Amino acid sequence: MAVAKAASGVLLSRPVTFVTGNAKKLEEVRAILGQSIPFQSLKLDLPELQGEPEEISKEKARLAAVEVNGPVLVEDTCLCFNALKGLPGPYIKWFLQKIGHEGLNNLLMAYEDKSAYALCAFSFALGPDVEPITFLGKTPGMIVPARGPNDFGWDPIFQPDGHEQTYAEMAKDEKNKISHRSKALDMVKSHFVEAGYIFQDK
Amino acid sequence: MAVAKAASGVLLSRPVTFVTGNAKKLEEVRAILGQSIPFQSLKLDLPELQGEPEEISKEKARLAAVEVNGPVLVEDTCLCFNALKGLPGPYIKWFLQKIGHEGLNNLLMAYEDKSAYALCAFSFALGPDVEPITFLGKTPGMIVPARGPNDFGWDPIFQPDGHEQTYAEMAKDEKNKISHRSKALDMVKSHFVEAGYIFQDK
Repeated sequence: MAVAKAASGVLLSRPVTFVTGNAKKLEEVRAILGQSIPFQSLKLDLPELQGEPEEISKEKARLAAVEVNGPVLVEDTCLCFNALKGLPGPYIKWFLQKIGHEGLNNLLMAYEDKSAYALCAFSFALGPDVEPITFLGKTPGMIVPARGPNDFGWDPIFQPDGHEQTYAEMAKDEKNKISHRSKALDMVKSHFVEAGYIFQDK
Repeated sequence: MAVAKAASGVLLSRPVTFVTGNAKKLEEVRAILGQSIPFQSLKLDLPELQGEPEEISKEKARLAAVEVNGPVLVEDTCLCFNALKGLPGPYIKWFLQKIGHEGLNNLLMAYEDKSAYALCAFSFALGPDVEPITFLGKTPGMIVPARGPNDFGWDPIFQPDGHEQTYAEMAKDEKNKISHRSKALDMVKSHFVEAGYIFQDK
């Protein structure tokens, strides 16, 4: 295991492995984390679980830490419709894939309440046998008919509160200021500062 | 591993373990299988996966066979709305739990097509390291406002084609004649007859 106690903090013998196969997510994470945490990315074929967002994220980190045998960071995104008590939530990927933006809007046809929230869960595990820590970032908004470029998931149908544009219509740096992902990553960054991890090869 | 080749078939050193924690499902399986296959039931805490129904079922059987270290039978049920391209499908449990019968009807508000199918997947694995076999039973019908007793999942909102009653309103033996579960179990029974498994302690 790549974890040892040093006088001034926890010593990590190598960079954090951020588990993702999604180039767009990696790009966002790089843009937000900058140089604050040494990390590398890796695509791992991990089982995707059902359940509550936080539990899914923790379990993914546990599995990833075993595979990598070192420090890992995993990410999960949910799109939660309030009228549907938080669903499709963690299953948004399948709904987007099967019924598309119009189908997602249609799920709310019966409801006046089109409010939703984008939820991002990052879990960080120091290694196998170490309980992961989870950071949840939440951005409230509403589900709207698709507007804007169609190159990143459900971004065209999510309009964050207090904004006239959908995630897809926003400039990247503007989205990164308010997004569920950046909020969760800010917590990750703060955690790294507070914990004072020391990277051996930094 | 509890599997050995005998002259006239595969010898199983013990009964098949049917993995379930649901008393109602166990009751149905007992009623349909009768004495045709020696089995015992066991509640196991297995991770629930996301994905396509057949893959979810196979993976569950793989995990169960490792835990039990012997022959296992696992079951999964999906309720698939045609207008939603098969969803909520394997996630029906969470949708039922969060938005109830009315919420499930509401998902189809935007569509004239209220057709659906109940899908049951049984996977049988002889033991760990043996590829599971999957049996899929499908009953077409439609989603209707809830009618009938409310003691078994989504039975009150599923009316099978060619019937005036919902699953919930039907007599148990009538439901067992046409249900997705009985269709899949009939295939399980046929498989056992064809394979000629021999149970050591039968």
